[in-house]
Amino acid sequence: VTTDAKATDPKVNEARVNAGNAAETKPAGAAKTLPQKIVPLSGFPEWLPEERMVELRVLRIISETFEIHGFAPLETRSVEPVDYLRGGGEDAQKEVYFLTRGAQDSKIELGLHFDLTVPLARYVIENGARLAFPFRRYQVQKSWRGERPQHGRFREFYQADADIIADGTLPIAVDTEMPALLHACMRRLAAEAHFPTMTLRVNNRKVMDGFYLGLGIENPSSVLRIVDKLDKIGAGKVRELLVGIGLGETQADACLALGQIAGDFHSVQTAVLAMGVTHDVLRQGLEELSLVWSCLSNEDRSRTKIDLRIARGLDYYTGTIFEGTLDGHEVLGAVCSGGRYDHLTAAFGAKKPMPGVGASIGVSRILARLFELKAVRASRKSPAAVLVALHDDLSYPAAMSLATTLRSRGIAVELATTAEKYGKQIARADAKGIPYVWFPETMTEPHRVKDIRSGNQVDADPQTWKPAEEDVTVRIL
Amino acid sequence: VTTDAKATDPKVNEARVNAGNAAETKPAGAAKTLPQKIVPLSGFPEWLPEERMVELRVLRIISETFEIHGFAPLETRSVEPVDYLRGGGEDAQKEVYFLTRGAQDSKIELGLHFDLTVPLARYVIENGARLAFPFRRYQVQKSWRGERPQHGRFREFYQADADIIADGTLPIAVDTEMPALLHACMRRLAAEAHFPTMTLRVNNRKVMDGFYLGLGIENPSSVLRIVDKLDKIGAGKVRELLVGIGLGETQADACLALGQIAGDFHSVQTAVLAMGVTHDVLRQGLEELSLVWSCLSNEDRSRTKIDLRIARGLDYYTGTIFEGTLDGHEVLGAVCSGGRYDHLTAAFGAKKPMPGVGASIGVSRILARLFELKAVRASRKSPAAVLVALHDDLSYPAAMSLATTLRSRGIAVELATTAEKYGKQIARADAKGIPYVWFPETMTEPHRVKDIRSGNQVDADPQTWKPAEEDVTVRIL
Repeated sequence: VTTDAKATDPKVNEARVNAGNAAETKPAGAAKTLPQKIVPLSGFPEWLPEERMVELRVLRIISETFEIHGFAPLETRSVEPVDYLRGGGEDAQKEVYFLTRGAQDSKIELGLHFDLTVPLARYVIENGARLAFPFRRYQVQKSWRGERPQHGRFREFYQADADIIADGTLPIAVDTEMPALLHACMRRLAAEAHFPTMTLRVNNRKVMDGFYLGLGIENPSSVLRIVDKLDKIGAGKVRELLVGIGLGETQADACLALGQIAGDFHSVQTAVLAMGVTHDVLRQGLEELSLVWSCLSNEDRSRTKIDLRIARGLDYYTGTIFEGTLDGHEVLGAVCSGGRYDHLTAAFGAKKPMPGVGASIGVSRILARLFELKAVRASRKSPAAVLVALHDDLSYPAAMSLATTLRSRGIAVELATTAEKYGKQIARADAKGIPYVWFPETMTEPHRVKDIRSGNQVDADPQTWKPAEEDVTVRIL
Repeated sequence: VTTDAKATDPKVNEARVNAGNAAETKPAGAAKTLPQKIVPLSGFPEWLPEERMVELRVLRIISETFEIHGFAPLETRSVEPVDYLRGGGEDAQKEVYFLTRGAQDSKIELGLHFDLTVPLARYVIENGARLAFPFRRYQVQKSWRGERPQHGRFREFYQADADIIADGTLPIAVDTEMPALLHACMRRLAAEAHFPTMTLRVNNRKVMDGFYLGLGIENPSSVLRIVDKLDKIGAGKVRELLVGIGLGETQADACLALGQIAGDFHSVQTAVLAMGVTHDVLRQGLEELSLVWSCLSNEDRSRTKIDLRIARGLDYYTGTIFEGTLDGHEVLGAVCSGGRYDHLTAAFGAKKPMPGVGASIGVSRILARLFELKAVRASRKSPAAVLVALHDDLSYPAAMSLATTLRSRGIAVELATTAEKYGKQIARADAKGIPYVWFPETMTEPHRVKDIRSGNQVDADPQTWKPAEEDVTVRIL
């Protein structure tokens, strides 16, 4: 696993060697000068095949769960005009990878998208007339951020997003679909891919904004941006910054105290009301929280907390916000998140309101952690259940024909490439964790299949032999 | 569908509008200046959800077929140091998208990969000690080429690649796995996704090189690069160019005549030998072609031709080469291709020979064509089989609970967002092609499900009701 933490800084330009050769056809690659030592690129994780098999299973579970919840798949292009990406705020802009190329033929500056939300808003406006609303789509694809790589932060990473966008009104109760969706995904991942369980923390921007307004603070979003840093810089520093932007000490303390409130909805409401701050926006926020809480299933509610510390830095959220952590891995931070946004498409010229609510799962962040801890792995390094061995070079066509027969019956087969000694061919199967080696029939011997774990060997008919049920496909351990 | 042909040139910078609004929380997106009209980016195709469902099914069929053939999944990062990409030759380099970003902190120039072969070679050298050989991997991911968009050529596109890389020798017979793999993929795509059938044309670089050498031509690869343009510029122009680089007219005519030879292996061999040119490399090439031909199954052989016109422009091929066209869609050019390469990893410092053979399917090119012709489509625009209707706003929690019950039974459900008149809710289901609408129980009525195609309505129990078998998942039509 190439995680940030382990990657050394690449210095590929330092050591060079001319790897030319005298091949008759002069392959271009071989004739070029390239670095002698190849080192990982920090922030661009790459998995081994046995890890990629886990990742594919995880992405599949998430996609299936999204579809069961009525979200249609979508994939947007990887690039957007830089102008669109600037909407993501200064920080995002600093992190955008811009594209240039030798033969430039377009005046549009392009960049790689840094999330799947800006592309969604653009896509909805671009294709509005061809979409059916409410538009429920999911996207499971990569995004890029040119930020300084840190542990658990990547420059290229997978995100799985689902959103509902309305072409008119979108009642608050609908927000509940997102916590329910995240719980459904993480529950299946815990059951089928040995993921830790997830706890979701829910808040509402209007509770925070309304409380700040009720305290007489005129610009609640500047307070929110500071409070959002609580986990990173601590209460003392947050208090200092709040006073720094002009809050009185009592106001600053009240803002910090609000962030300490967490629990089920009713205890949270009681605690907020006990602070004696009132404002219409605060009242509306508590009503929205109450509605979302009441629509959760009992099962989901048992893994959900109202937590007024959750702020979600992104500017575009307008109501419900939530984020989830993996139980026992809270140090990893939020692994899924989302919320309500009422104005996202306005920037792209939507003429009528298009409120939306969405959720996102940070797949790469979770997998990097679980791979590093060796908490999940595939049962073998190859999808193949059987290695068809080669008796001698001349028998290749017969072995190929045998492999074709097994493959047509849905059995995943690797065909040996060279007629090495059987012991060596068995060792190659073993190195990949392939459980069975098939020795094709010869003039004197019938087809035989060996389970290389037990050493058991049986005569076999290519038309009827089957691997044991648990060996048919790769399992997640 | 946003294909090149239809896309107008983007002029997003011309028309601008400030879409600011007075929302209390000032969402960042809404406060920015963005173009009023959003137009597609030429060369970056994006599908509608009902097309993406087809694409996902196609990618899934290909991935499954690769796995049945014993290839393990791999995904490499999207970027490579530009130095590595330069190995792809001048044309490729011109087409590379380079990356830059605001806060540059690395001296390594990065670019988006333009194929999956250079990343594979780099990955194998970087991770060699952790891989089991022969390394059989597949990659289904996007590549980028900043070339001038033409019909059927994209700047961002999906490719599905499978390769076998040996850590020593890789007998020629193994090359046959690739034509067999391509035939298996395209056969399943024809059967399950209504793709046209595929015809594969096979050649061997050594036949061409050996023939040119036998003619007394010293630099066969320069001839090959010209002959490769036959389809684009025609025989007259190719002849002219061949004479231009110093070939005699007889030599040029012989080169052109070689390209006219096609058929089954034996007729091709007879025709080549009849031309009276001899060379050891030519003899070896014919032997290799013979071996690959003999290892093909009868079924595959009936869709395969030896065709000495096939040149494959890429420098790195050293032996077997092949490309496939869709029957009836030959105008589209090659939709899959591949071949043998013996020196690819040498450029990255491989100390021992690592010969490989690979195949690639141009998924985006095929799908763009089939979508444009409306030759394939999904049976509906949403994965949902059922829309759960809303009786009134207050019944949302009960409707949510009902949706949860159905979803937990594996039925894909969309939950209505607003309690519009039932007629309007049915119209929304119809717009997405969702076949059933579920009317939740009320004080006076039981649960009822309506098949909105037939109008049939039945009482239903959420614990037992099932959609008709053919409605459970989206089908490809």
